[in-house]
Amino acid sequence: MSDPAARGLFDGVLAAGPVAAAVADPAWVQAMLDFESALAWAQAAAGLIPAAAAAAIEKQCRAELYDIGELGAQAAGIGNPAGPLVRALTDRVGGEAAGYVHLGATSQDVVDTAAMLVTARALGVLDADLRAVAARLADLAQTHTATVLAGRSLLQQAPPITFGLTAAGWLSGILAARQRLVTVRTDRLAVQFGGAVGTLAALGDNGIEVSDRLADRLGLAAPLLPWHTERGRIAEVAGALGQTCGAVAKIARDIALLAQTEVAEVSEEGPPGTGGSSTMPHKRNPVAAVLAAGAAGQAPGLVADLLAAAAHEHQRAVGSWHAEWRPYRELLRTTGSAVHSLRVSLDRLRVDPDRMRANLDRTGGLLLAENVAVEVLAASDGAVGRQAAGDAVAACCRAALAGAGDLAGLLAADDTVGRYLSRGRIGELLDPAGYLGSAEAFVTRMLRHWNDIRASGGEDVDG
Amino acid sequence: MSDPAARGLFDGVLAAGPVAAAVADPAWVQAMLDFESALAWAQAAAGLIPAAAAAAIEKQCRAELYDIGELGAQAAGIGNPAGPLVRALTDRVGGEAAGYVHLGATSQDVVDTAAMLVTARALGVLDADLRAVAARLADLAQTHTATVLAGRSLLQQAPPITFGLTAAGWLSGILAARQRLVTVRTDRLAVQFGGAVGTLAALGDNGIEVSDRLADRLGLAAPLLPWHTERGRIAEVAGALGQTCGAVAKIARDIALLAQTEVAEVSEEGPPGTGGSSTMPHKRNPVAAVLAAGAAGQAPGLVADLLAAAAHEHQRAVGSWHAEWRPYRELLRTTGSAVHSLRVSLDRLRVDPDRMRANLDRTGGLLLAENVAVEVLAASDGAVGRQAAGDAVAACCRAALAGAGDLAGLLAADDTVGRYLSRGRIGELLDPAGYLGSAEAFVTRMLRHWNDIRASGGEDVDG
Amino acid sequence: MSDPAARGLFDGVLAAGPVAAAVADPAWVQAMLDFESALAWAQAAAGLIPAAAAAAIEKQCRAELYDIGELGAQAAGIGNPAGPLVRALTDRVGGEAAGYVHLGATSQDVVDTAAMLVTARALGVLDADLRAVAARLADLAQTHTATVLAGRSLLQQAPPITFGLTAAGWLSGILAARQRLVTVRTDRLAVQFGGAVGTLAALGDNGIEVSDRLADRLGLAAPLLPWHTERGRIAEVAGALGQTCGAVAKIARDIALLAQTEVAEVSEEGPPGTGGSSTMPHKRNPVAAVLAAGAAGQAPGLVADLLAAAAHEHQRAVGSWHAEWRPYRELLRTTGSAVHSLRVSLDRLRVDPDRMRANLDRTGGLLLAENVAVEVLAASDGAVGRQAAGDAVAACCRAALAGAGDLAGLLAADDTVGRYLSRGRIGELLDPAGYLGSAEAFVTRMLRHWNDIRASGGEDVDG
Amino acid sequence: MSDPAARGLFDGVLAAGPVAAAVADPAWVQAMLDFESALAWAQAAAGLIPAAAAAAIEKQCRAELYDIGELGAQAAGIGNPAGPLVRALTDRVGGEAAGYVHLGATSQDVVDTAAMLVTARALGVLDADLRAVAARLADLAQTHTATVLAGRSLLQQAPPITFGLTAAGWLSGILAARQRLVTVRTDRLAVQFGGAVGTLAALGDNGIEVSDRLADRLGLAAPLLPWHTERGRIAEVAGALGQTCGAVAKIARDIALLAQTEVAEVSEEGPPGTGGSSTMPHKRNPVAAVLAAGAAGQAPGLVADLLAAAAHEHQRAVGSWHAEWRPYRELLRTTGSAVHSLRVSLDRLRVDPDRMRANLDRTGGLLLAENVAVEVLAASDGAVGRQAAGDAVAACCRAALAGAGDLAGLLAADDTVGRYLSRGRIGELLDPAGYLGSAEAFVTRMLRHWNDIRASGGEDVDG
Repeated sequence: MSDPAARGLFDGVLAAGPVAAAVADPAWVQAMLDFESALAWAQAAAGLIPAAAAAAIEKQCRAELYDIGELGAQAAGIGNPAGPLVRALTDRVGGEAAGYVHLGATSQDVVDTAAMLVTARALGVLDADLRAVAARLADLAQTHTATVLAGRSLLQQAPPITFGLTAAGWLSGILAARQRLVTVRTDRLAVQFGGAVGTLAALGDNGIEVSDRLADRLGLAAPLLPWHTERGRIAEVAGALGQTCGAVAKIARDIALLAQTEVAEVSEEGPPGTGGSSTMPHKRNPVAAVLAAGAAGQAPGLVADLLAAAAHEHQRAVGSWHAEWRPYRELLRTTGSAVHSLRVSLDRLRVDPDRMRANLDRTGGLLLAENVAVEVLAASDGAVGRQAAGDAVAACCRAALAGAGDLAGLLAADDTVGRYLSRGRIGELLDPAGYLGSAEAFVTRMLRHWNDIRASGGEDVDG
Repeated sequence: MSDPAARGLFDGVLAAGPVAAAVADPAWVQAMLDFESALAWAQAAAGLIPAAAAAAIEKQCRAELYDIGELGAQAAGIGNPAGPLVRALTDRVGGEAAGYVHLGATSQDVVDTAAMLVTARALGVLDADLRAVAARLADLAQTHTATVLAGRSLLQQAPPITFGLTAAGWLSGILAARQRLVTVRTDRLAVQFGGAVGTLAALGDNGIEVSDRLADRLGLAAPLLPWHTERGRIAEVAGALGQTCGAVAKIARDIALLAQTEVAEVSEEGPPGTGGSSTMPHKRNPVAAVLAAGAAGQAPGLVADLLAAAAHEHQRAVGSWHAEWRPYRELLRTTGSAVHSLRVSLDRLRVDPDRMRANLDRTGGLLLAENVAVEVLAASDGAVGRQAAGDAVAACCRAALAGAGDLAGLLAADDTVGRYLSRGRIGELLDPAGYLGSAEAFVTRMLRHWNDIRASGGEDVDG
Repeated sequence: MSDPAARGLFDGVLAAGPVAAAVADPAWVQAMLDFESALAWAQAAAGLIPAAAAAAIEKQCRAELYDIGELGAQAAGIGNPAGPLVRALTDRVGGEAAGYVHLGATSQDVVDTAAMLVTARALGVLDADLRAVAARLADLAQTHTATVLAGRSLLQQAPPITFGLTAAGWLSGILAARQRLVTVRTDRLAVQFGGAVGTLAALGDNGIEVSDRLADRLGLAAPLLPWHTERGRIAEVAGALGQTCGAVAKIARDIALLAQTEVAEVSEEGPPGTGGSSTMPHKRNPVAAVLAAGAAGQAPGLVADLLAAAAHEHQRAVGSWHAEWRPYRELLRTTGSAVHSLRVSLDRLRVDPDRMRANLDRTGGLLLAENVAVEVLAASDGAVGRQAAGDAVAACCRAALAGAGDLAGLLAADDTVGRYLSRGRIGELLDPAGYLGSAEAFVTRMLRHWNDIRASGGEDVDG
Repeated sequence: MSDPAARGLFDGVLAAGPVAAAVADPAWVQAMLDFESALAWAQAAAGLIPAAAAAAIEKQCRAELYDIGELGAQAAGIGNPAGPLVRALTDRVGGEAAGYVHLGATSQDVVDTAAMLVTARALGVLDADLRAVAARLADLAQTHTATVLAGRSLLQQAPPITFGLTAAGWLSGILAARQRLVTVRTDRLAVQFGGAVGTLAALGDNGIEVSDRLADRLGLAAPLLPWHTERGRIAEVAGALGQTCGAVAKIARDIALLAQTEVAEVSEEGPPGTGGSSTMPHKRNPVAAVLAAGAAGQAPGLVADLLAAAAHEHQRAVGSWHAEWRPYRELLRTTGSAVHSLRVSLDRLRVDPDRMRANLDRTGGLLLAENVAVEVLAASDGAVGRQAAGDAVAACCRAALAGAGDLAGLLAADDTVGRYLSRGRIGELLDPAGYLGSAEAFVTRMLRHWNDIRASGGEDVDG
């Protein structure tokens, strides 16, 4: 099964990118087998079982040796796939070593630890896409530090911003989400090993030693105690993925809005066959952004399902454990798809600074009204209050919109404004490029932050 | 692909029952092809294309002719699987008839109508499981009309009920959910056919005729106008499925609680290998109920995702449409699995009336305290108020719990109670079987309702 | 307390309209008292208590007699506000009649039935807003049956539609949601009366009679049996409200998009002080649509919470009942606010047909490409296939976009197109008004549906 | 307004504890005014406005000076309460200083920063409850390190655990959640200050200086750039609160299960009037645990709503910002109520070790079966495999359950088991206290962790 993630009807669209394979069935089976193999070696290291037995067990711990469909079918009886897998593994190992398979462990140990391994690996490949997205956004922020366009508030044009600031803002969301994922990966993906009820009773006094060795072998954190019915780790993974999807959704939505026919400030320039429409060949559909939004939009409910499953009864839940499996996998997969589609969208993104400027000019200087009001306030040395200055400017704006003349002229002729500002000064104030405040400084700060991350090697997360 | 639903690692556990196959990829592809075939025939009937073309198209409309993995992979470019399927279909049809494939339709028409067909078929097979559940619950209600057990409020024993009433209450939830599903199936699963923007412009004046014929052919409702970006139908399906899962969750949770070691009033008696534990062979795990709860527990978040995707922009959404596909399918599948697992649980259910009675007797007559209080109220002809009667009885209860004597004796000796009730009357009042109020009548009403449904043929829903 | 809904900091924005007061604390207390009063009268009618007692009880059943803050504070001990209210009511009634207060009922009976009454009343006032919205949409559909604008798919311009069709589509969502609400109101809002465990044991053989009389008095449905731990009714109300919010969200989002500075096809023309910005006086913010979207956007999670609370344990839940109260009220309130804000937005809506036409003309005839392709298909009598026709037209579109000439000329000069279509015919085909398919017919069907509803009196829902 | 949180009908039950007041309207108004005051002082420190103006502004920044109902009503027009508050503040300040109110800020700056302040303060008081819960759990873990009870898996009795381990597991969930809240409080609660579009254009070159001073004054983090439409902070707060509620829900559910009449291993011993039932005076309702569960159960949907609102359009969202306010506040409040009710429940908790032991003894030694199987495995030196040993023991268990004799005798008589284990050894193996594995060591590790936290001063979070 070379690429299990690409086999579904909707998977090309909604399971894009490398995470899909990392969370597919074979990856889960391998992770469960990795648990069994590492457990045997941990017990061998602790002197509980012969090293030869561990070696014999490890040899059978390759996913391709097992029939996933068969395991799935058998899982119905006992209620989880670990039982059938352990039985099949034991059968394959055979001989004396068979007696040392899965020693002291319970099914939930296998599935929960596998979930953590799968997560670690998925976050590893996800991070590559996240870094690519971040690098592209940093590049856009840098390139377009001085590219002016209309800010938009409630989808109405507002005072000018730069596209660099827009990209820097997008970057801030991506980096914050990535930071959470890195922290969760490092601190919270822990081995689960507790035996039937979390005491590791079958291992006598050796439980903690084996558990710590197991964690070490698997590259997972060692928990203070088993967490089989304390699902805070699941909640944290879910929260971090939900946050990531939110950051993606924001960017994807902005891209789709900027790509509108009537706005056309960006477009996705994909290979032939993408973004077109069978019936509307002239369209420049921002398909990758749309797919990113579509994938990201599935996260909130999946997070809710995982949070709602937190109350695991006593030492094993009556349903809440099972209720986690699909939403957990779906959440990883849809986050992976969202980030990957965003990466594709950004790779295809063509920015049109001329169109940005043209759109900005549509409203004359109206967007700079705030600028004029503030200057009147300052120039009047307090004689004109903020409210009064605003009212005066607003009146001129309304007049301009009503066709009574151009805004600069109306402002110069206004009693309040004209008293304090010359026509030339008004012209300067109505120039968008002169009214960008800290936009450039903000971009600089964000880029420095990104460079610090890269310099500290923080861009490398080992899955 | 004989049983596509059974192929996944978690599918035996979480995609149980017949719905899984009905919503699997092949079923979707077939539904999309059914749309294309029916569209061609509808256009032939309207005189828009030759009947021979429709026949040629129909001939290629079998899912097994297409490579689903390939379609999925190609879907990434255009953003949906309908595009590649139409192209593949057109290629297969060839010749002149190829020009009549998909005429006037858009990708969303194909996918949305397929979703409705898939839903109709899934609800058909789901209904068989729902009816079996209802029949079993009706049987339990009938059989146990007089089986007394402790009511439980906040998990504390409360006045007695019957297990028949419990089953009748469970039945009411199932039948209400089923009624919603039947109504949605009949009234709201409608064909979607609007062309690029919902005007059916490519069909000139023939749009409505073709649309109505198409609905008729597919056994779907004919909408007043295309609903491509009005997702109320999706919301209604989601709501009905969410309600169904809620009804299942309630029953599954009650079964798990009644099956507790310390309660042991019911148990699942499954075939060997089910419900046992590899490490705890004595256990009687209510596995099927647990799986039902696990499946049902996934519904709320999926419903939320579907509702959150309602705001489809203009004539085609930038993400919300894509965001529906997986949650929609998952919701159908998990509902199917929940109902099916509940059916299995109920089929395995063994009820222990003796244990029910024994548990009830644990608290002596304390549970009947309310009964005595009410009788004092009546016997005193109003001289003792509800509050005073309650207080007097409560004091006796506290004394009995503190070991001051048996409750009947304490009540007879109480100033307030003893004045109005004889010791013999108190004994009668403390008999659980005498304090069941309308329990039997409620069961009778519910069974009559179920029999009416069956008599009216309402139990047959044609998928 | 004349307008309790208007007292909160966020209530003007997010608790707009009449539903807020209908679900506020005083309305809940009144509904709980209505239950107690109706219960007393139902028992009097059944001969269980004196009519004088019922009259005495009724007299004290006015919400303004009780201190809501005090009731809320006392509720903490017992875990619900019904206990303190019953005690306060009993104190006020005094004398012999006090002994007949709350007879045979339990706290959950009071709160659940009150929830149904509150819902009925809230849906009543909500319906007035829904009807106003529907009437306004019908008016827009009628007025703008022939107002042409660009369809938009993935926010890209697409073939033309009419604004009448847009409004008719919006109307279809509102009417479908309203239909669900009406059905739920009529069929599913039922009295809850079961006593401690749902047997009505305290009423002996009179339980069902009293329950049915109670339902009749309160104008609620009489259930077949108590539904205290079967929460399908809650799920149905939630689903219908979630659907309503979805319909609102779709319309609100479309309005905000159409109102964009760069599109400007509609605007909200509110009274002074609305829609402006303190810092950007020229803006035409679609504030009411934004508030509608903001209110509607809260529904999905609230619905999820209510569905997740479905599994009420045995005869009284350990948490799930309490978990319903706030989300249930919030869902009613936010739906009321969403619908009301949408009503305000639509009342303020100014449509600009000239701008619609101007935007449509921006892309020359490109949007009509599909039209030309279909005509070539027809004119060639099958000689040119759908694919080939589409490809030829697409090539001309690309050439036109690249500046190679105007589209009509390029098409006339194209080998495939020019062979079958004259320049004059091409001109006709590129006229948007000629390519509207069934748009007008769809509008007509929808308006007829609305008129049927109004004619049948269906527009009056008695809260 | 001394206790605004206690004023609602459901607030005693669902808005318990100190968080409710910290997130009530007056707290929001005060936080908005704190923003305005701090902004003025930050600008004064930067030399932009006179210190006298800042002092004049600060003087009017007390919430009790403003009519919250009035502000709420006025907010409808502009769509947020900051507008009316700024106008009212400006009016109160009057004179020259009025011109310096809210300089360069926009409404969203006020509301978003206020949300962060409110959160910081709410987390401060929440932390006191969390620490009390943790201390109580640590105490329970310590006290009951050796208190043996039945483990329970799928609600079936399983091998023994200790109540100390149970409490330590609960503690682990609480401490993990608390750690997240502390981190979020410290790192992610940042000032929002960006002006109309996030450039701080009105402040010229002074934007960043003022912003950093503002953050410093308010005790909030200084962001790299404004986050008005990058809602990762909201997502992180939501995730941490959702996790907290999950930890509470787990504990509350376990308490309710352990308190069942048939289990009775713990009970809540509250003051008179709590936990009783008006109709069932003997009951020991775990009311506080139920309220904790009821409050915690509302979190998942609220988190979903907040995550779903992440995609804020451009520089100000068309609805998603407004959609956050209520869910955000509700989530804080319900988390506060959940934690507080859990604290009450734990304060009332009475543990019954005798009953724990008695319940454990109900199943004879059946729960220790695993123990025997493992010992056979070891004693046979590999001659008997895990599977065979398990099968042999399972057969004896089934025989014992069927009444064929006591388990120890049956095991001694079994061919496989008896060959390797003496009757005396079997007796030891069936002693629960001898089969607790690492339970004590786990408790010790957890208590050490808690003590480390306390020693490092980590228990003090300054709100």
